[in-house]
Amino acid sequence: MNLSLNKHSSEPLYIQIFEQLKELIQQGVLPEDYKLPTIRVLASSLDVNNVTVINAYKLLEDHKLIYKKVGSGSYVLPMEEKLNIGNAISDDREELEYDYNGEEGYIDFATASPDPRLFPMKDFKAAINDVIERDGGKAFMYLDSRGYLPLRGSIASYLSHKAIEVGPEDVYIISGAQQGIDIIAKALLTNGDYVFVESPTYTGAASVFKSRGARIVEIPLLNDGPDMKELEKLLQVIKPKFMYIMPNFQNPTGCSYSERKKKHLMLLSKKYNLLIVEDDYAGDLSYTEKAAVPLKAYDKMDHVIYIKSFSKIFMPGLRVAFLIIPENIKKTIASAKYMTDISTSGFMQRVLDLYLNRNILDDHIKYMKKEYGLRYFEAVRASKKYLRGAMFNQPNGGLNLWIKLPEKVNSSELYEACKKNKVLITMGTVFLKGQEGEQYIRLSFAGVDVPEITRGIAIMGNAIEEIKESAD
Amino acid sequence: MNLSLNKHSSEPLYIQIFEQLKELIQQGVLPEDYKLPTIRVLASSLDVNNVTVINAYKLLEDHKLIYKKVGSGSYVLPMEEKLNIGNAISDDREELEYDYNGEEGYIDFATASPDPRLFPMKDFKAAINDVIERDGGKAFMYLDSRGYLPLRGSIASYLSHKAIEVGPEDVYIISGAQQGIDIIAKALLTNGDYVFVESPTYTGAASVFKSRGARIVEIPLLNDGPDMKELEKLLQVIKPKFMYIMPNFQNPTGCSYSERKKKHLMLLSKKYNLLIVEDDYAGDLSYTEKAAVPLKAYDKMDHVIYIKSFSKIFMPGLRVAFLIIPENIKKTIASAKYMTDISTSGFMQRVLDLYLNRNILDDHIKYMKKEYGLRYFEAVRASKKYLRGAMFNQPNGGLNLWIKLPEKVNSSELYEACKKNKVLITMGTVFLKGQEGEQYIRLSFAGVDVPEITRGIAIMGNAIEEIKESAD
Repeated sequence: MNLSLNKHSSEPLYIQIFEQLKELIQQGVLPEDYKLPTIRVLASSLDVNNVTVINAYKLLEDHKLIYKKVGSGSYVLPMEEKLNIGNAISDDREELEYDYNGEEGYIDFATASPDPRLFPMKDFKAAINDVIERDGGKAFMYLDSRGYLPLRGSIASYLSHKAIEVGPEDVYIISGAQQGIDIIAKALLTNGDYVFVESPTYTGAASVFKSRGARIVEIPLLNDGPDMKELEKLLQVIKPKFMYIMPNFQNPTGCSYSERKKKHLMLLSKKYNLLIVEDDYAGDLSYTEKAAVPLKAYDKMDHVIYIKSFSKIFMPGLRVAFLIIPENIKKTIASAKYMTDISTSGFMQRVLDLYLNRNILDDHIKYMKKEYGLRYFEAVRASKKYLRGAMFNQPNGGLNLWIKLPEKVNSSELYEACKKNKVLITMGTVFLKGQEGEQYIRLSFAGVDVPEITRGIAIMGNAIEEIKESAD
Repeated sequence: MNLSLNKHSSEPLYIQIFEQLKELIQQGVLPEDYKLPTIRVLASSLDVNNVTVINAYKLLEDHKLIYKKVGSGSYVLPMEEKLNIGNAISDDREELEYDYNGEEGYIDFATASPDPRLFPMKDFKAAINDVIERDGGKAFMYLDSRGYLPLRGSIASYLSHKAIEVGPEDVYIISGAQQGIDIIAKALLTNGDYVFVESPTYTGAASVFKSRGARIVEIPLLNDGPDMKELEKLLQVIKPKFMYIMPNFQNPTGCSYSERKKKHLMLLSKKYNLLIVEDDYAGDLSYTEKAAVPLKAYDKMDHVIYIKSFSKIFMPGLRVAFLIIPENIKKTIASAKYMTDISTSGFMQRVLDLYLNRNILDDHIKYMKKEYGLRYFEAVRASKKYLRGAMFNQPNGGLNLWIKLPEKVNSSELYEACKKNKVLITMGTVFLKGQEGEQYIRLSFAGVDVPEITRGIAIMGNAIEEIKESAD
């Protein structure tokens, strides 16, 4: 085991140890159940304090990479259990079921999963049965890779309310937004290509791009959208295959691009022939009168691939989402989809289509906005009240608050303190590297009901105060 | 447009033209609606007969790559329409819906799609409603990437009847066999890796491997399995990442490996540390007393990845299949699945699980075997009677007959003659290159009922006789 520390780096030593061990474990260099060196041995071999190693091991344990056996030492956690508990990626947008159902008694601000009690089961059940009555076995046949044509039409007319003018032929059905990201990567990226992303961004997208051998370039996100000067500077020297962004209620920051920046971005897209992938993660969920306008609505040049999932506003288990594809890449996207899984479940597509035609979706979105809105405003209120010294923007939409912690409070410490008190949050380090990430947490409020939001944030507040005190 | 012909090649000139134009079209070098040179112009520029170009254009037209405008010439067919009609890949294992439903009045031996009239809709509907009653909104939550644990357990016990001893932890749920192939490729292949496949093989798999930059090495398939000498010779000089095979009722040949060859293959796998991907495409569908034993049942070394779909024996529209994963690659497969689509629809998994637990699947397989068996035996009987001079093995299982045509009869000619008479078949050239492919057709009988099988094969027989006569 070969670790090399830079004692002059601004990155704390325990983070350096953590990062390097994490990599060795994830690459399988340290196999499952491998016994790590004792704290004393590793500390002396690295010439650091015992407490530095203790902190690094603790962080590994929190990241579900190692486990402790009392009186025996620390071991690499087998993948099985890692997956069961959920790792960094699974903490993000799309969660493993265990996260939601497994942790009885926890207040879970870590998963951005919607609350299943809000799902429209009665209407949905009726639609399911109607499709079976109407289509019989045909509903379970293979389907055109691009999707069920009537659904593609229903989606096209649904989009016209969002100022997006497309036809059924532009809409491709996919099995969830993550698959959209995967298919786009498969169709467009080869080894060494550049991809621009926001910083911070959704890690589940960046991982896919990296696995195609792409080089990721991070564009800093300001309050009203990307740093446009930085972006243009980079565009002058690098030609990325595309730029992956969430222009409304971004994950994790909640940031929405200003109208000016959306227009500016489309100008740059024209000037530099830049393809943009817009992941409309939670654009429907605006909690004020002002609806969020998708970037795609500004796209006159056919430069934007639009990804939209029904997971957040409807039900994640559907596994149905869609893409809007610019004309010139339809062919390659269709063939990538075909190679990926032939087609998305035709049955679910038929059910969703019926659902859209009955105009129940809009009513349901209104209902979800009302419910999530209550949660959002309580999350804001309680955070202002209990999280003293913390700072955050009020996105007025989406599923997350991105909270900058008071000085002296690290997100990993806070994570641990909250967990002890049965409150789960997501550390900023999942989205931003090192010390910068330590300054933030993401608080996802959509899966937690109002009284629990109050209680959970009060607990966080206490934890912050305790950490501040112990630091003094 | 730059074509270069080899007049001394054994490959007919019209095939050479076809192949080169096909490539130019598929690569987008010739864009949609591009007007091809007139027959006269191209023939004179290539110094060949007009009829050679006519044949090449005809073949392109049959492959849905170009279309004719009367009095104007030939044009590259837009992708939209190509996809609608189905191309080479979609002619194969997994078909676009249009193939099945669209061609009214056709007898369709081209799609290996099951007959929706055989789907167990009543039982399935009951299971769907029971799941909604039992689980409510929970059924539509996100799920563990590896699948719904109870279903993984049900599948593990179902497999014990096939002499495959695994636990729930070895079973990973995926959205169809094609996704399994994609995930395996994503997890294991990088640029320049070698993959061994059978020749002929399922083209939808080979395309995926190639898209990861893999080099494909074809192992000839004999009557009782691969050419083992050739295989070992290659293993001595090349270390492939894996070998992709269908050991029972192979697609397209129907070939099943002998027990001896299965054991021999496992020995080679041990000797050369060869990872094998077994695609159990249609292993359940044996029409004799003798059940087909999966290669996985012989795998004592954990060297076989097993892929099994429920599409052929149950319903394609489910989009549920599973993998059995060797221990040492579980981690990388799980993460590739996560990046691909987070998880397969949890709702469908719950329904299938209930279905398995009620022990209805085995009864249903018995029923499908009976129905498909009747079709198989009629296909064999009619082929012997009507296809004079043709040769084929009798696989006694699966979904296809792989028929070697009489001399002087090319599969592309026969395809065209059959189509005129409203009978669809798959040309051997989809699976084997050039002149060798021209000697074969694949006849998929599962989607056609018995009287139509008789009628369709009689029509094929007439077409063969006419082609023979016109050749004399």
